[in-house]
Amino acid sequence: MSETTEDPVKFEQWKPEIERVRKIRDDSIVKEYLVPEDKLPAPDRMNVTNVPYEAGTMSEKELKITETTAVNLVAQMAAGELSAEEVLIAFMKRATIAQQLLNCVTEFLTEEAFAKAKELDAYYKKTGKTTVGPLHGIPLSIKEHLSVKGKEVNAGFVGFIGRVVDEDNLQLSILKKAGVVPFARTNEPQSLMHADSSNNIYGMTLNPYNRLLSAGGSSGGEGALVGFHGSPFGIGSDIGGSIRIPAAFNGCYGYRPTAQRITVKGRTGAGAGQITILPSIGPLTQSAEDLDLYMKTVTDGEPWEVDCLIPIMPWRKVDTPKSLTIGVMKDDGLVYPVKPMIRALDYAIEKLEKAGHKIVPFEAIKPREVYDVALNSFYADNGSAQKAALGLSGEPWLELTKYALSYAKPLSTLEQWQQNAIRNAARVEWDAKMKELGIDIILCPAYFGPAALSHDTEHWAYTALFNSLDMPGSVFPTGITVDPKIDAEDSFKARTEYEAKQRAKYLNAPEKYAGAPIDLQLIGRHYRDEEVLAYTKVISAAILDK
Amino acid sequence: MSETTEDPVKFEQWKPEIERVRKIRDDSIVKEYLVPEDKLPAPDRMNVTNVPYEAGTMSEKELKITETTAVNLVAQMAAGELSAEEVLIAFMKRATIAQQLLNCVTEFLTEEAFAKAKELDAYYKKTGKTTVGPLHGIPLSIKEHLSVKGKEVNAGFVGFIGRVVDEDNLQLSILKKAGVVPFARTNEPQSLMHADSSNNIYGMTLNPYNRLLSAGGSSGGEGALVGFHGSPFGIGSDIGGSIRIPAAFNGCYGYRPTAQRITVKGRTGAGAGQITILPSIGPLTQSAEDLDLYMKTVTDGEPWEVDCLIPIMPWRKVDTPKSLTIGVMKDDGLVYPVKPMIRALDYAIEKLEKAGHKIVPFEAIKPREVYDVALNSFYADNGSAQKAALGLSGEPWLELTKYALSYAKPLSTLEQWQQNAIRNAARVEWDAKMKELGIDIILCPAYFGPAALSHDTEHWAYTALFNSLDMPGSVFPTGITVDPKIDAEDSFKARTEYEAKQRAKYLNAPEKYAGAPIDLQLIGRHYRDEEVLAYTKVISAAILDK
Repeated sequence: MSETTEDPVKFEQWKPEIERVRKIRDDSIVKEYLVPEDKLPAPDRMNVTNVPYEAGTMSEKELKITETTAVNLVAQMAAGELSAEEVLIAFMKRATIAQQLLNCVTEFLTEEAFAKAKELDAYYKKTGKTTVGPLHGIPLSIKEHLSVKGKEVNAGFVGFIGRVVDEDNLQLSILKKAGVVPFARTNEPQSLMHADSSNNIYGMTLNPYNRLLSAGGSSGGEGALVGFHGSPFGIGSDIGGSIRIPAAFNGCYGYRPTAQRITVKGRTGAGAGQITILPSIGPLTQSAEDLDLYMKTVTDGEPWEVDCLIPIMPWRKVDTPKSLTIGVMKDDGLVYPVKPMIRALDYAIEKLEKAGHKIVPFEAIKPREVYDVALNSFYADNGSAQKAALGLSGEPWLELTKYALSYAKPLSTLEQWQQNAIRNAARVEWDAKMKELGIDIILCPAYFGPAALSHDTEHWAYTALFNSLDMPGSVFPTGITVDPKIDAEDSFKARTEYEAKQRAKYLNAPEKYAGAPIDLQLIGRHYRDEEVLAYTKVISAAILDK
Repeated sequence: MSETTEDPVKFEQWKPEIERVRKIRDDSIVKEYLVPEDKLPAPDRMNVTNVPYEAGTMSEKELKITETTAVNLVAQMAAGELSAEEVLIAFMKRATIAQQLLNCVTEFLTEEAFAKAKELDAYYKKTGKTTVGPLHGIPLSIKEHLSVKGKEVNAGFVGFIGRVVDEDNLQLSILKKAGVVPFARTNEPQSLMHADSSNNIYGMTLNPYNRLLSAGGSSGGEGALVGFHGSPFGIGSDIGGSIRIPAAFNGCYGYRPTAQRITVKGRTGAGAGQITILPSIGPLTQSAEDLDLYMKTVTDGEPWEVDCLIPIMPWRKVDTPKSLTIGVMKDDGLVYPVKPMIRALDYAIEKLEKAGHKIVPFEAIKPREVYDVALNSFYADNGSAQKAALGLSGEPWLELTKYALSYAKPLSTLEQWQQNAIRNAARVEWDAKMKELGIDIILCPAYFGPAALSHDTEHWAYTALFNSLDMPGSVFPTGITVDPKIDAEDSFKARTEYEAKQRAKYLNAPEKYAGAPIDLQLIGRHYRDEEVLAYTKVISAAILDK
């Protein structure tokens, strides 16, 4: 265990600052959108996904708007059937309920959002059926550590409170030109390095399908909000699973682009200069079509004209073969999936075969080594960047911060080079194996089971393997949810103590996970972002009978 | 100074192996192409560029072939005016003279080359005016450490002798499909990390313009051979200047692509896992048009279909503005150029202004820090990879190996991260400055003066800055050569002891540098390889009055 930087006396001095930013959050809520206390579900009601239908603050039309994909919303606004303001109100209302139930929002951008929506509506009225861009009027939520001009950005560190950024993150800036209406900022964990979302500033974000469970992380605020249909379009970030895990835990769609495919300019965090595992910024949405729309729009915005660190790669048109060859990797070799995940995989395979796709088994290659490259590299500075950021305020370390930093050990450059060499060799080996087997895409879990309990997600390998390999990946819902009656059985014999410990989290109390949605993950080849998203549309539609 | 790994007893055991590979080299020479001993120039004749005209082994037509660009040779072969075999013979003859005078070749691929040329001629005859590809019949030379299937690759380390590789490097494999005729492999320095080309296996490569001078390095065999017109097309590699320095020293053209723009698959060296400064593989040629032809052909070969580590970036068509804005960086801020280089820069500026281009001054930003990132990173493993490779045979360390490894100090990962952060910030800063000044391309030296004396090149910053910044760069001749009568003066007051020491190398004896050609360097923005080469054509033509 790493030495903590906790300092209760110093932390006491930061408490007024925490109160101040919480007040910014609370003041940003539109009061008339709040569900009255007495209409809120009891705290012991776990599944709250239906509350928008019960609370009485949203009209039927508004409910429908929030369950429409961005692709369709844009079409309806372009046809004059919906105004940007109507769409904004609908999502603001549902996001407000989300905030009351799940604590996922750190700040509503209320004033700016309404000004922008009105401006778009005026533009549309004036020009007659012309939109400002491909995302005209789409409300957008943004993970807190991704810069919004003129706003404070704390990245989940108490000691960062008060840091104001002077420009939008570059993806946001491109999306704004395409017409989005940024309306909310969302929660993330202390240090940004949990697959969970709790910090000492805003507290814990909960899962809408089951409030005992984690919203995942680090983009957990986005996961919960988008999963609750409180936002059609969210921006998250992912260096070990931080888009895909929350998307999976909350039953929505998420996408981690190939690192450096699109820009990551404009983010705050600790640990500059770590280049073995590079971060990605990407979307969480309510459909596969919307993931594609997001990626195409950001790429069409030519981020390479502003960000000199990324290649010039316009969005390619790709053809999807009628019959895809799908490599199914059931197991990451480290923690075998529990029953509901196996059930989802088997269900998916059946649907995909019925739809004419070819399924071939795919075995993870050197998963321990590949996962370790990530675990060893994140804190190869002995965690000193993270510890320094935590030490600024002396804030208490959350349990998952302690867990993450337990991997902190200083590497010499020679040792880091060895990790890089393992990484490079593995990238070649996985790619070669996909080619050898003729696999178009890999289907696998994004986690060994449903959402973990809060403060409990420890095993990131199903996602982090692909950060280490830098293979782009999406997650999508299967429609399967946990049914403790049929999902309790397990005869798998754990291969290691670690595996037994991880699986026991679920196996000890499957009933706690009731109703949790099961997503699956699709992994493609390096820089083949277009293929991954094109195939995700086809594959998710086949599984969901769309 | 790092502790050496020298071991005279062990090295003695390797000597028969050295003799064996030298014999491979010598046996590969076509004996009738050799210039008789008595027709060779005296050893004290420095400039040997005219020897092909004097030696009597080459016909006028052959001489003309070897002074024709690849672009034109392809056209003439496509028109049936030349056969591939004729072209091969011409270059083989001139390369044989080069080898006799300069010791630049490690092995001729005689048998394979003639077989391939004959095959191409048969194909052409059979199909009637159809070439196999855009490089039909172009002889190609290859730096020794870049794999050629079935051949030994030693990378300048005695202890690597005997290692046979089982496939071609990927650029070579693409070029072969495009029709090249690989005919020679070329020399490089011990450890690959000198800007000079001497090793304990094949000895020292000399400069054709002045045999007192270095051919540069590490692609010095290519530089000398192409500079002597003994090869129309060479493949080199560059991690600190290793294509550009030898091209500049030998008065030819060279190009370092953006790292990861095209593939580096299939090379041997020491130090896997160093990812702060990535290597490039690229061409040395006799014209700017040929650099472009090379890059377009390799890119059109879709290296990303084989090499999973690089982005998918087809070759873009670019328009060259009629009037370019050229930022002139006369000085790297560390070692101010000596007179002949200043003269070449002033000459170039005059020509470029006359041609209607706009010249603006450009000052190097934080050159010491940016150069240090490279120097600190190459051996951040304490040089242990290099030392291990040298230690295999116990071979003596050459002076420039000692110099290079004097930079070896072990970094912690935290220190390496700090270097990476400096690198990233500098990349952003340089790019922003170019944009702010509206600069299309930077014109600067590739070295502070003409070719150094053998065993004497120490200051790589003019090139290595741009490896650190990962900005692609070409070099091209200006037509200016050193004239000691007018190039001896100097009134510059050195800013540091280091600068005084470097400049003294030239200033102490300008007469030794007589006849050395002066090339200049053009540097563009990250991934703008197409622009750099398009502008290189226009700029070099303006300066050379083409």
